Amino acid sequence: MRVGVLTGGGDCPGLNAVIRAVVRKGVQEYGYTFTGFRDGWRGPLQDRTVPLGIPAVRGILPRGGTVLGSSRTNPLNEEDGIRRIQDTLRRREIDALVTIGGEDTLGVAALLSEEHGIPCVGVPKTIDNDLSATDYTFGFDTAVNIATEAIDRLHTTAESHMRVLVVEVMGRHAGWIALHSGLAGGANVILIPEQPFDIDQVCAWVTSRFKASYAPIVVVAEGAVPKDGDLVLKDQSLDSFGHVRLSGIGEWLAKQIEKRTGHEARTTVLGHIQRGGTPSAFDRWLATRFGLHAIDCVRDRDFGKMVALRGTDIVRVPLAAATARLKTVDPALYQEVGVFFG
Amino acid sequence: MRVGVLTGGGDCPGLNAVIRAVVRKGVQEYGYTFTGFRDGWRGPLQDRTVPLGIPAVRGILPRGGTVLGSSRTNPLNEEDGIRRIQDTLRRREIDALVTIGGEDTLGVAALLSEEHGIPCVGVPKTIDNDLSATDYTFGFDTAVNIATEAIDRLHTTAESHMRVLVVEVMGRHAGWIALHSGLAGGANVILIPEQPFDIDQVCAWVTSRFKASYAPIVVVAEGAVPKDGDLVLKDQSLDSFGHVRLSGIGEWLAKQIEKRTGHEARTTVLGHIQRGGTPSAFDRWLATRFGLHAIDCVRDRDFGKMVALRGTDIVRVPLAAATARLKTVDPALYQEVGVFFG
Amino acid sequence: MRVGVLTGGGDCPGLNAVIRAVVRKGVQEYGYTFTGFRDGWRGPLQDRTVPLGIPAVRGILPRGGTVLGSSRTNPLNEEDGIRRIQDTLRRREIDALVTIGGEDTLGVAALLSEEHGIPCVGVPKTIDNDLSATDYTFGFDTAVNIATEAIDRLHTTAESHMRVLVVEVMGRHAGWIALHSGLAGGANVILIPEQPFDIDQVCAWVTSRFKASYAPIVVVAEGAVPKDGDLVLKDQSLDSFGHVRLSGIGEWLAKQIEKRTGHEARTTVLGHIQRGGTPSAFDRWLATRFGLHAIDCVRDRDFGKMVALRGTDIVRVPLAAATARLKTVDPALYQEVGVFFG
Amino acid sequence: MRVGVLTGGGDCPGLNAVIRAVVRKGVQEYGYTFTGFRDGWRGPLQDRTVPLGIPAVRGILPRGGTVLGSSRTNPLNEEDGIRRIQDTLRRREIDALVTIGGEDTLGVAALLSEEHGIPCVGVPKTIDNDLSATDYTFGFDTAVNIATEAIDRLHTTAESHMRVLVVEVMGRHAGWIALHSGLAGGANVILIPEQPFDIDQVCAWVTSRFKASYAPIVVVAEGAVPKDGDLVLKDQSLDSFGHVRLSGIGEWLAKQIEKRTGHEARTTVLGHIQRGGTPSAFDRWLATRFGLHAIDCVRDRDFGKMVALRGTDIVRVPLAAATARLKTVDPALYQEVGVFFG
Repeated sequence: MRVGVLTGGGDCPGLNAVIRAVVRKGVQEYGYTFTGFRDGWRGPLQDRTVPLGIPAVRGILPRGGTVLGSSRTNPLNEEDGIRRIQDTLRRREIDALVTIGGEDTLGVAALLSEEHGIPCVGVPKTIDNDLSATDYTFGFDTAVNIATEAIDRLHTTAESHMRVLVVEVMGRHAGWIALHSGLAGGANVILIPEQPFDIDQVCAWVTSRFKASYAPIVVVAEGAVPKDGDLVLKDQSLDSFGHVRLSGIGEWLAKQIEKRTGHEARTTVLGHIQRGGTPSAFDRWLATRFGLHAIDCVRDRDFGKMVALRGTDIVRVPLAAATARLKTVDPALYQEVGVFFG
Repeated sequence: MRVGVLTGGGDCPGLNAVIRAVVRKGVQEYGYTFTGFRDGWRGPLQDRTVPLGIPAVRGILPRGGTVLGSSRTNPLNEEDGIRRIQDTLRRREIDALVTIGGEDTLGVAALLSEEHGIPCVGVPKTIDNDLSATDYTFGFDTAVNIATEAIDRLHTTAESHMRVLVVEVMGRHAGWIALHSGLAGGANVILIPEQPFDIDQVCAWVTSRFKASYAPIVVVAEGAVPKDGDLVLKDQSLDSFGHVRLSGIGEWLAKQIEKRTGHEARTTVLGHIQRGGTPSAFDRWLATRFGLHAIDCVRDRDFGKMVALRGTDIVRVPLAAATARLKTVDPALYQEVGVFFG
Repeated sequence: MRVGVLTGGGDCPGLNAVIRAVVRKGVQEYGYTFTGFRDGWRGPLQDRTVPLGIPAVRGILPRGGTVLGSSRTNPLNEEDGIRRIQDTLRRREIDALVTIGGEDTLGVAALLSEEHGIPCVGVPKTIDNDLSATDYTFGFDTAVNIATEAIDRLHTTAESHMRVLVVEVMGRHAGWIALHSGLAGGANVILIPEQPFDIDQVCAWVTSRFKASYAPIVVVAEGAVPKDGDLVLKDQSLDSFGHVRLSGIGEWLAKQIEKRTGHEARTTVLGHIQRGGTPSAFDRWLATRFGLHAIDCVRDRDFGKMVALRGTDIVRVPLAAATARLKTVDPALYQEVGVFFG
Repeated sequence: MRVGVLTGGGDCPGLNAVIRAVVRKGVQEYGYTFTGFRDGWRGPLQDRTVPLGIPAVRGILPRGGTVLGSSRTNPLNEEDGIRRIQDTLRRREIDALVTIGGEDTLGVAALLSEEHGIPCVGVPKTIDNDLSATDYTFGFDTAVNIATEAIDRLHTTAESHMRVLVVEVMGRHAGWIALHSGLAGGANVILIPEQPFDIDQVCAWVTSRFKASYAPIVVVAEGAVPKDGDLVLKDQSLDSFGHVRLSGIGEWLAKQIEKRTGHEARTTVLGHIQRGGTPSAFDRWLATRFGLHAIDCVRDRDFGKMVALRGTDIVRVPLAAATARLKTVDPALYQEVGVFFG
């Protein structure tokens, strides 16, 4: 049996751990051979491959990124995309395809599997942890640890100076990283995309925090927005192409807090350091177990499925579940955490 | 309402996060006052207390250990123990007791609650993660991260030299830390208390690993034992008190591997560094949520209960569940991981 | 003998290690008593003190910030400033003053010592490492480690995606942090304040890097400027107070690179996380030795001096040396490192 | 010009950074070609090489170990060793040899250079920092950071429990790692090979520490010995080969402390984790600069020299200096640090 593997979408600590587990178990226990497709769906589209066997996966467990490369190429947007993929798989005699990726990558896998008879198994990947079909996705724990460590360091400065410290973390549509790292780091305000914020309320928390102890730390997801959207527009600037460009929400927030409370404010923008580097132990564990179970799906010819975490168990759910619903932060959970604000 | 809080048993990263969450929510949302009992059950036994309010919990979230101190004192072994505890609680007008601890501490809480009408709420704590009533306990993720980082570092040496590297990690009765850190660290052999090991099999893995690539890394839980127990006894030495003292299993294993395979072996014994220092983000999140839910149990007068993690939810289970059954590593899971051995 | 201690200027990992060493040796070996002045020179100006003895310095070695607090208050700008300080010291019977701070704080100490007979000993502190009188200052190594770890993480993303990654680090006037972290992190371009950069050269490095391997990482000190300063002005925006506000150089650079090379670029702004958190082992060692030698200066009544590192020795230099000359990056050193650009 | 490179002796974080710098500058600035010799002196002895050019050094900066492999093979102990090396170098037309290693490796280089006309340049490497010709060697800072972090974690347990915590660190002949990490970690006793210790004094420090605050942390170099050597012998055990085997000094010390003070004691043996994993920023900086200057020695045909750190400068010293004198801890420095004992 010959199995293809590809990774799509943004990079995420743990991808290599999945690849390694799939290959190690596939080769050692089931005697499969493997073909690595390069750069996500672009690989089978353009028939670009890399050799994939035990030597290729040696030593990759602790390494971030993906040895297969990645891209956001979507075959549905390419002329004859699906047929070209079918051709590649047929020519290379691929019996099954393990696809590791987020909503987009798995959405294609679901379609190929259901409507075009291409035997796909999915492994969910999103650093934002916003997939409703699984308790957690790998990469998320690493990102939260990095953001938390950054917040820890800011407390020192907050104690010694009278500056509001704003930290902008990842999360365009879901506030999980902000919520977890903000709580773990002891932030005084956490702002998430799911709950448009009231800038007056933010400033009230800032002010009360100063009275209670020392300078506040504000964690804001990159996708968080104020209730009164006009506020942001009034503060826009032109980018270097001459287009209107919203400044990052972190920088915007710092300026608003300065203007409204009179307290100086500084911004840290963590950016891509949240998704790079070696995965945490939790993410390696989860990614490895996802890989082991994905190749078991192949062995069972249980296609059109995706592996998922439920409690401490790895289960199988339909691939379509991956794209069914974005898992956003429950208002009740946000309120639970709100006891630490201000 | 006046609430007592105590922490018992071995220290564990996240204890302070629980205490902080209990007090912050109790004071801010419910208007409770708090009494901290010092050093576990010894506190109410000897009426030793510490002031516990918002100022006392400021800044403790990222700190290991427990600001309340801890001990292994068991009131059931003390003369008049239960009555003395009742006296203290009555005199101090304590309406509820939040007890944070492992099997022993919570076992006492269960008894006091069920048979002596003392209103207890429990928060489970065991760095070994061996409580069947909850998916995870706080402290475990931190320990696994520390052990994994140590194993990561050993790969460098294993690549450059021809030495077998043995790492002894915590786990007297359950192999969770060995299993998770060994898998996450890419160990070539993992030995756990649940599965007495065959020293010949271990040496076979060591030898095959040398042939396949470079020197092997062996992770062994402190409670792991060989199938043929006589082996250990034959290798014993006298300790400084003149008593028979089994050497640590890690050191014993290194010597056996040297003798049987002819390969040099070195041992690292992580010891207490696994349970110290700042908690990981996961453990802070879990510990904080445990604390928030424990004080909600108090508010609901839902005594005799313990908070527990199920998937991503915090639930309540009877306190007795804490001591019902040790959660050991399932043989099927150990076998799943075995694909990486050798 | 009674010794006063104060810390001035921005916070810096290692301040507490200095304070601890001064007090431990002063009390234990010389039998001195101590008075802590709060918030830098504001302390003696307003007679604000904190108790300072063995208990106050327990456990502070690994903690960032300063238990004495800090400020940028300059007594020379205060009415009657010097006389008020003299009054405080006389009233409190202070025989010597250990002042820990940067150029400003030590400049005052030099003046008080030379012209007003106030017996001062100085300990140099600047996270930017830009003091010519000492090989290194504490805090710098910690900042470089934090920035290097961030750059390490970005390599993962650079390998998997085609994005230029810009990291803005501290350094208004001197590029030491950018130079050391950029070199240690394997950056492809390093821009420092001492060498105004040619944006065309930067874009040429970016382009050549893409051809040679994968996406480049650009490290830029916050004080770096392009040769053609007009470039920046043309790209300015108004801040929330309606004033002209230059965007951060990191963000500006990312936009220029995008516009000129056509490659997408992303920015990380590390901000205050570089100066917070626990000091590295090197910084604790250096800060502790500075403290031990500073109190020896007091014992020797060798006032008007500052401790400094030369090789592996701690030496004494005149306090005035602290402010004599900014230590900037030597062009020859910058060129030496340039072999790694592009 | 063709340059050979080899790495000898124990592994040490920073070796790859040296190799990369030598090759990058050699190729890019001087147009040299390179031959990598595998496994130290065994490479030229057995004519075992690896390709070494820009592609081979890509991405190795942050990686521990050495891409060239290492060994302790000494050509002086091999039949015809020197002649075989000369043959290899002649056949491969090697014009210069960059040798990276410790006392043994560089001792051979000195001899080859002085007496056999083989053009060698040396780069000093010893994790123990015990080379008198240079202020610091790379790898040392990494080891100290790892040991310090371990000690930091133990404080948590020491605070919560009444257990003496013994940490055994590297250092057979010199106590630098113990001294620096013990000081940086706030240890209460530091024992080094240079100063045979009095077990009664150690126990006195342990006892006084318990009275002053909480449980003590004892850092002991693996080569530390008690004044009364008989003590150790009386406590020996037989190893698995039936030979007398001294237990590790850490474990021995823990047992002695238990017996003599009545306090429970626990041991952590860090072992090889101190020399593995990614180098600290300081070590990468130092190793890279060593490499850049070593290849400049080659360009200047300045053979028989070794690069060394003096303050912040890289200088050249005779290769013979590497083996001239072991740099041990000065008694005055040990005494300086002694203020923190007990």
